Amino acid sequence: MTPPRWLEQPIRRPDAASSAAARARQQSLTKPPGSLGELESLAVQLAGWQGRLLPRVDRVHMSVFAADHGVTVEGISAFPAAVTAEMIRNFTRGGAAISVLARALGASLEVINLGTVNDAAVAGCADRELHLGAGTANFATGPAMTGEQLSAALDAGRESAERAQDGAAELYVGGEMGIGNTTAASAIACALLGAPATDLVGPGTGLSVAGVAHKAQVIERALALHRAQLGDPREVLRRLGGFEIAALAGAYLRCAQLGVPALVDGFIASTAALAASRIEPQAREWWLFAHRSREPGHGAVLAALEARPLLDLGLRLGEGSGAACAVPLLRLACELHAGMATFAQAGVSGALA
Amino acid sequence: MTPPRWLEQPIRRPDAASSAAARARQQSLTKPPGSLGELESLAVQLAGWQGRLLPRVDRVHMSVFAADHGVTVEGISAFPAAVTAEMIRNFTRGGAAISVLARALGASLEVINLGTVNDAAVAGCADRELHLGAGTANFATGPAMTGEQLSAALDAGRESAERAQDGAAELYVGGEMGIGNTTAASAIACALLGAPATDLVGPGTGLSVAGVAHKAQVIERALALHRAQLGDPREVLRRLGGFEIAALAGAYLRCAQLGVPALVDGFIASTAALAASRIEPQAREWWLFAHRSREPGHGAVLAALEARPLLDLGLRLGEGSGAACAVPLLRLACELHAGMATFAQAGVSGALA
Repeated sequence: MTPPRWLEQPIRRPDAASSAAARARQQSLTKPPGSLGELESLAVQLAGWQGRLLPRVDRVHMSVFAADHGVTVEGISAFPAAVTAEMIRNFTRGGAAISVLARALGASLEVINLGTVNDAAVAGCADRELHLGAGTANFATGPAMTGEQLSAALDAGRESAERAQDGAAELYVGGEMGIGNTTAASAIACALLGAPATDLVGPGTGLSVAGVAHKAQVIERALALHRAQLGDPREVLRRLGGFEIAALAGAYLRCAQLGVPALVDGFIASTAALAASRIEPQAREWWLFAHRSREPGHGAVLAALEARPLLDLGLRLGEGSGAACAVPLLRLACELHAGMATFAQAGVSGALA
Repeated sequence: MTPPRWLEQPIRRPDAASSAAARARQQSLTKPPGSLGELESLAVQLAGWQGRLLPRVDRVHMSVFAADHGVTVEGISAFPAAVTAEMIRNFTRGGAAISVLARALGASLEVINLGTVNDAAVAGCADRELHLGAGTANFATGPAMTGEQLSAALDAGRESAERAQDGAAELYVGGEMGIGNTTAASAIACALLGAPATDLVGPGTGLSVAGVAHKAQVIERALALHRAQLGDPREVLRRLGGFEIAALAGAYLRCAQLGVPALVDGFIASTAALAASRIEPQAREWWLFAHRSREPGHGAVLAALEARPLLDLGLRLGEGSGAACAVPLLRLACELHAGMATFAQAGVSGALA
């Protein structure tokens, strides 16, 4: 396997001068220092990323990647694989959660079909169609992807980040849809963290307790099969990952190369970010984490990324929906940072000596 | 003391049929059941409160109550009392955090001056001026208010809830500003919860460790002084409370009588809600809790109210700012509830049997 050469391009550095100026501005605003908590640090981070004292999050680019998973033949999902293609149609017709959220937020949303079991039925439905295969192969019995498929999936992510930059997006949100993809993400997380499946596996879209136990067994079998090749994060993605998980990893890496901040969604997106951080640790600096998923493996993945998400609302849908819900907080952080008066402007007394 | 008669009016009942219909709708939307977590329960609650299948949170009424505290002579705040009046001017000129947030959210904001040490300097600045006194009396040496002052403060809250209803507000947000009011709120929380001051007291706007210890001593002295009269929550408000805290309690109670859902802000607002719930426990059903403040006493107050706030961002500003930050989550919950397609509409397969 020869990974794409673009993965070796340098990560951009945030602008320290803009962060410092934003930090100083926060200290001058009419509030006790620090009293806006994480809204202050968000404004400072965004200033550094955007290289300006007064950042904005008006233009948000959302890319949702959909793909099927061969591992569904092992009976690890509460929903049939056909739902992936059905949801692609639902995304573009505007009826899915992320469709509604993108509309409400005025964000641009593109749906990218990387390959499902029913591509013929949804031809022309997605904004982009790559057809890397009729889903991945069953990773419980062999590698999920060929090297070419992995490269194409990473490239799909890279291109979405480039479209975000071309559109002058101030924030990138990646989403995913794929029946079976909590199984793939759990396997990837186990491989990257060296954790047993029973520690990380959860109900996904709604498995019973027995279903979760079976899912853990399928993952343990796969980890045993691939064990010798799991030292390289690219091999982890190729052998266990879904097309959409690899695409998200590629997107997060390219965002960090281009200097587009990415707001990472829940368990599956965070697992893609973890894989990306193992490919290039410096990329982590360009990512915010939106929410803590109810999926039990998310905590371990977030801890490994030293991430403290903005929201904790028991979400476990994916699609980028949790990231979308956190966008207003970033916008309000920018509004407060730019719109509040300073102590001097307002004639308000400072703290007692 | 004769408390206002309106406190005895009945609490409105949410509409159980609308909640049930909303719950059924949530089950039919194209997502695994429950996967939108608290956004689902918010939509269901709002449906019951508003008596309609598809609730909205377009019209938000914000009332910020400002007042001074005689207890500031004890040296319990990092900022001088003059700041309360200075901030009233900042609110109405649009430079304070809540001013910025109200603008960004398209919410109506009214500023109510209940009485400060510098009322002459800010005459005409607030939207409403009641001048109940030049702040409360020092509760470390006597009752903070007369019975008439408490009634007038509760009435100020009642009237703000009535203005919200008159404006067809779909949500009420109360805020407060008053140098010294974490001391008053901590004392009230100690009295209502039977907790020692050292368990609940925190730095407020930014006290040192020694300052926090002194604040706890002042509160303990006051609790000892008033102990025999603290069995009645109205006496707790009168003896320890600020005008703005009593006004918030009145507002939350009137909201529950009128059927206007209230989104409660941080530590001080939650303490007002706790006092209100002790006056009329049924009122609790009409309140949502916006965020977990960094002020250490908030956890105990939230636990007593069985409240799980929506946000946890390390905020400790007050003014209603944390509540304002949670408004977009309520709006997105409504958008998802109304805008998502059902499984039948979208032709998406349900869960496997």
